[in-house]
Amino acid sequence: MSEKKINALIGQSGGPTAAINATLAGVVRGLRALPGCGEIYGAMNGIDGVIAGNIRDIGSRLRTEEELNALECTPSAALGSCRRKLPDVSDTEFYGKIFDRFAEYGIGMFFLIGGNDSMDTVDKLSRFAASAGSPVRIIGVPKTIDNDLEITDHTPGYGSAAKFIATVCEEIAGDCAVYTTKACTIVEIMGRDAGWLTAAAALPRLYGQVCPDLVYLPEVSFDYDEFINSVLALFEIKPNIVVAVSEGIRDAEGRYVGEGSQSGVRDIFGHRYLAGTGKVLEETVRARIGCKVRSIELSLPQRCAGHCLSAADIRESVMIGKAAAGFAAAGRTGEFAVLKRVPGLDYAIVPDAVPVSLVANKIKKVDRAFINAAGNNVTDELLRLIAPMIEGEVAVPMRGGLPERFELKE
Amino acid sequence: MSEKKINALIGQSGGPTAAINATLAGVVRGLRALPGCGEIYGAMNGIDGVIAGNIRDIGSRLRTEEELNALECTPSAALGSCRRKLPDVSDTEFYGKIFDRFAEYGIGMFFLIGGNDSMDTVDKLSRFAASAGSPVRIIGVPKTIDNDLEITDHTPGYGSAAKFIATVCEEIAGDCAVYTTKACTIVEIMGRDAGWLTAAAALPRLYGQVCPDLVYLPEVSFDYDEFINSVLALFEIKPNIVVAVSEGIRDAEGRYVGEGSQSGVRDIFGHRYLAGTGKVLEETVRARIGCKVRSIELSLPQRCAGHCLSAADIRESVMIGKAAAGFAAAGRTGEFAVLKRVPGLDYAIVPDAVPVSLVANKIKKVDRAFINAAGNNVTDELLRLIAPMIEGEVAVPMRGGLPERFELKE
Repeated sequence: MSEKKINALIGQSGGPTAAINATLAGVVRGLRALPGCGEIYGAMNGIDGVIAGNIRDIGSRLRTEEELNALECTPSAALGSCRRKLPDVSDTEFYGKIFDRFAEYGIGMFFLIGGNDSMDTVDKLSRFAASAGSPVRIIGVPKTIDNDLEITDHTPGYGSAAKFIATVCEEIAGDCAVYTTKACTIVEIMGRDAGWLTAAAALPRLYGQVCPDLVYLPEVSFDYDEFINSVLALFEIKPNIVVAVSEGIRDAEGRYVGEGSQSGVRDIFGHRYLAGTGKVLEETVRARIGCKVRSIELSLPQRCAGHCLSAADIRESVMIGKAAAGFAAAGRTGEFAVLKRVPGLDYAIVPDAVPVSLVANKIKKVDRAFINAAGNNVTDELLRLIAPMIEGEVAVPMRGGLPERFELKE
Repeated sequence: MSEKKINALIGQSGGPTAAINATLAGVVRGLRALPGCGEIYGAMNGIDGVIAGNIRDIGSRLRTEEELNALECTPSAALGSCRRKLPDVSDTEFYGKIFDRFAEYGIGMFFLIGGNDSMDTVDKLSRFAASAGSPVRIIGVPKTIDNDLEITDHTPGYGSAAKFIATVCEEIAGDCAVYTTKACTIVEIMGRDAGWLTAAAALPRLYGQVCPDLVYLPEVSFDYDEFINSVLALFEIKPNIVVAVSEGIRDAEGRYVGEGSQSGVRDIFGHRYLAGTGKVLEETVRARIGCKVRSIELSLPQRCAGHCLSAADIRESVMIGKAAAGFAAAGRTGEFAVLKRVPGLDYAIVPDAVPVSLVANKIKKVDRAFINAAGNNVTDELLRLIAPMIEGEVAVPMRGGLPERFELKE
């Protein structure tokens, strides 16, 4: 018991999600279970906090089950976030300062919870540590609503975002169904490069509920004629058409639909930044069909809807955080914690770790086989794969009819 | 028991809400409790269904507590809806056909659940009935998320919409707070003429939660300079500013901000329909401040978020439906059911009825005294008035992580 204890530092990075705080709570829970863990610090605003010395003792703020549970169902990022691309590891002055900071706080383990870009940070820090002979263990813990990280079965944060998107798309489709006049409603969903989030819009179909009739992912080139013809064909059988589109759909030449240049309605857009994928398709339908049309951009609520959490997502987000603490304790470094699906009929997920270089700066797309031949919807097979990730509800503490949030005040 | 029973007909009209089906269930519950009630019919797509003879026996579909409970937490409009302005009551041929239809189905009571425009329909139908000596009792039952109906303390449907808006605005504010770079986020909320919905964005403030810093209602003329100066002043104390605006805000000359013509950025908008209130303010901030800025339009989910119901709203929506059945049974006609707040410290609501002519085609705005002197936020007094309307959660039945809906299939 006289052995020197190792302090730990945790940071959050990239866009917030509804589950990134659950992972933070998981890392804290995992560290607490380690005999050799000393103080638990939080780096405010990710790596920026390390550089600036904006580091707080969060262990003393997260002592009780009640506090950890409350943090687990609080969306956003309790430690703040940043978007910073680190310089090449050859910049020894830059990295030297970061590791000096680690030394200052007696940090032996650094955890960065983040997405693709954050894994680049983890990769660089661990490569510098190796070259400099530093004993600090660097572990990346994934989070991203986009679900576009390689190797991990899926990413913590995706399930809750998918649940919100599926729920809201069902509600929009149900709302639109009440009128008898022909109308087309276009729902724009996040996902610049991968269509995982947009695919979730079709989940209600698995349960016989209404949902978007057409689903366009960035994995397939978008064809304006096919789109218009599909809407027209659907109008033959019902008056209300709902279309889900990824913000990142591109035409055959690789140009983003959101740029508006290939939609046939270029002249009515003043400036490109006024457009958006949904808006461009709205204008396309207005110009080529002339029916009532509206577009809805789900926007930020997709990633922060803490009132609509997936219990499976929160459970796994805590689990992967706990596991990450164990990996660091076992002396692993330069690794990335992943969720591994156990083969079998029942859904089961276990944590694992792989070298972070295998994921940094890579994007996992939706397999073409999961998209129908026409390229305008996803298969039931994909939906069955995603379905367990949105299962279960989280009883968020409420006050006055609104969710109560946990704040990591000092 | 040999007395002839009176059949009842119910219709839904105007924009759907998350609570309009609760009122439908309430009317059915109320009718069931009457000894003299015969068949219960539903008019599909409101008055259009009466005109076209698209009338269904819904009583046989809504027999059990389970069915009624399921309908009560299903958003949208189970009977479909329409937007139709009826001709002047002097058009006896038109109204004669409607009352012939009533006779065909033995209808003695007609209930129309709807907003301002629907109350115009109720008014005209009851005036025609009076002039024609028809015994059919016509009762209007309010619903509108806008909360802009006169006389009633508030409208069924408002509480759930307000709860969703307050919840999502808190989540957006929490999400935006994670970065340290200056950014302005503008949230556009429904409400063309009245600011009740936008006011709800500030509700989290009552409980010490984050929420929009500035709140602009259509009841006060919008001043671009005041807006920009307020944002700049807030940037002096924090980097992330969130602004809630009603879609219907207008400048001192009465021009909608959403038209873009007075924003100082007119030239960069190709066509008016591309703009929107949030987009125009986004461009204004970009042009005049130059910071990171984004706008979010909450759009349709505001009125159909059945996954985020206010228990108070659903309870009152059922209550007013039940009461409406009782008013018709008591021989009242040409009336409009209202929610009356019982004076006192505790929140208590009872149903009442008033002549529909007192509400038809009128708009209840937010009192200027409920808005601060600068015109850029609402008072705590207003928030305390609204707060009880969003209280309590409804345990919506779930399957596969998604809300289960009730369908009025034949």
